[in-house]
Amino acid sequence: MSALIALDWGTTNVRAALLAADGSVIEERHGESGVGHLDAAGFEARFEELTQGWGDLPAIACGMVGSRQGWVEADYLPCPADPADLADNLTRTSTLAIVPGVKMEADDHRDVMRGEEVQVAGLLAARNGFEGTIVLPGTHSKWVRVAGRRIVDFRTYITGDVFAAMSAHTILRHSLGDDGSATKGMFETAVRDAIAGRGSMAGRLFGLRADTLLAGADGATNSERLSGWLIGQEIDSAAVDGFDVQAVTIIGSGALAERYGTAFAAIGAQNETIEGTDLVWPALTAIARRAGLIGAA
Amino acid sequence: MSALIALDWGTTNVRAALLAADGSVIEERHGESGVGHLDAAGFEARFEELTQGWGDLPAIACGMVGSRQGWVEADYLPCPADPADLADNLTRTSTLAIVPGVKMEADDHRDVMRGEEVQVAGLLAARNGFEGTIVLPGTHSKWVRVAGRRIVDFRTYITGDVFAAMSAHTILRHSLGDDGSATKGMFETAVRDAIAGRGSMAGRLFGLRADTLLAGADGATNSERLSGWLIGQEIDSAAVDGFDVQAVTIIGSGALAERYGTAFAAIGAQNETIEGTDLVWPALTAIARRAGLIGAA
Repeated sequence: MSALIALDWGTTNVRAALLAADGSVIEERHGESGVGHLDAAGFEARFEELTQGWGDLPAIACGMVGSRQGWVEADYLPCPADPADLADNLTRTSTLAIVPGVKMEADDHRDVMRGEEVQVAGLLAARNGFEGTIVLPGTHSKWVRVAGRRIVDFRTYITGDVFAAMSAHTILRHSLGDDGSATKGMFETAVRDAIAGRGSMAGRLFGLRADTLLAGADGATNSERLSGWLIGQEIDSAAVDGFDVQAVTIIGSGALAERYGTAFAAIGAQNETIEGTDLVWPALTAIARRAGLIGAA
Repeated sequence: MSALIALDWGTTNVRAALLAADGSVIEERHGESGVGHLDAAGFEARFEELTQGWGDLPAIACGMVGSRQGWVEADYLPCPADPADLADNLTRTSTLAIVPGVKMEADDHRDVMRGEEVQVAGLLAARNGFEGTIVLPGTHSKWVRVAGRRIVDFRTYITGDVFAAMSAHTILRHSLGDDGSATKGMFETAVRDAIAGRGSMAGRLFGLRADTLLAGADGATNSERLSGWLIGQEIDSAAVDGFDVQAVTIIGSGALAERYGTAFAAIGAQNETIEGTDLVWPALTAIARRAGLIGAA
């Protein structure tokens, strides 16, 4: 029997699920997010459209829907943050409850996340006693350090965003793409090169252009090299920023999560990948239960 | 009496000068480049338009007009390159002679320049016995190492291109700009931070966004910080790439050259700035004379 409507509402897309009291999925729907474009009435209409026919059930959402450009601005839990406290800090509208994000406010490092904290909560629920480094690849990758069941540190790396901007909007746009066939192992070599030779990142970029002009390098190979350098730089930076990069749990899916797995394997780091979408519905169900939105299973 | 038409023909703009036999400027004109857009007939027409009324004189040009997307593809001198050899390797059309670029073809580093070699030739002519590091700031900055009157090494850093792409096409676009008033000294601090903590460059970027969200940082201050980090990273990379960054001669003009001067001063490096536009016409005149396009002054 249906008990809860849950939404994973990001910047670009929204996933909505009709869930049973035990968190199992009865039906799932997808739509465009509207974050940054809709006003409150617009979000209300988007919600109605997404959940049509699901009845008048308690509803809970996580992600950028709780940002300043979202439906209602939800709070942030300060870091170190216990994911168990998410349920005690929901922001409620007449329609739904929004899970808080997590913020970091050290003088030398401010950071925010919205949505990833629910995946981390899901991982901690599934893996009793988990400690270590979690990597959530994305346009803006999040690295999270968990100790004592708490998020004790996290940092955002906008690697995917920078890759896209460089690919489309710098001189490199003439030298990247999917023409040709990427030389095997080029990505792995680039990851290792970036980690071995920190300071010369800036000195490598124009080489892609010059290799095209002087040596006929193809776009696909160059794209693998740029991707490898940038992900390698992210891993190298994360090590400098205090994360253990030699044993990581990747939460993600598809080609990007696979790419990160390849990068960690290339440097001999222990790594496993957990499907992120599998973690969200159980975690939101647990939060809704703890907050009293739904009864015991 | 007019003796030579000289053109500094870049990707975006072209400068044309009517010169006397001693290299002094009789008249100067500016226009749009057309590189990447015009065919041979189009370049011919652009040339006629720029030089109208200057008579049927020998003409010489440097810059991207000699690239594959230019009027005619000119050669590259291989590095190490003696700027005195530029005159012996001109590519001639029925209308004008184009100065070769310089290329670097080491297995681990390929690179190209077109136009900057003439400024370097001008500097070597003006400063007998010059040795050391030359920095030519630009969308694509060139670093050049001169020893024994030759260009023995050079490298391109696309710092300005990356800054522009990040500013306009990543999440940082919401956190950069000219709103507010830049905190004094922020640029210099950012330069030093980038050089002190190499690996964490990638970990700093999202902080601009978080500082806006959590601490109300203004766009102008954030822009100075990003600029300082990227220029600092360029200097740090150049040091790794073998350039002496503690004593440099900047060839450039305006705000960007000044910005690089400030960056070098911030790390206690000895630096001087030479107006680049002053070097080009004498250098092109000397090349034209050596090539026999014009007679002795």
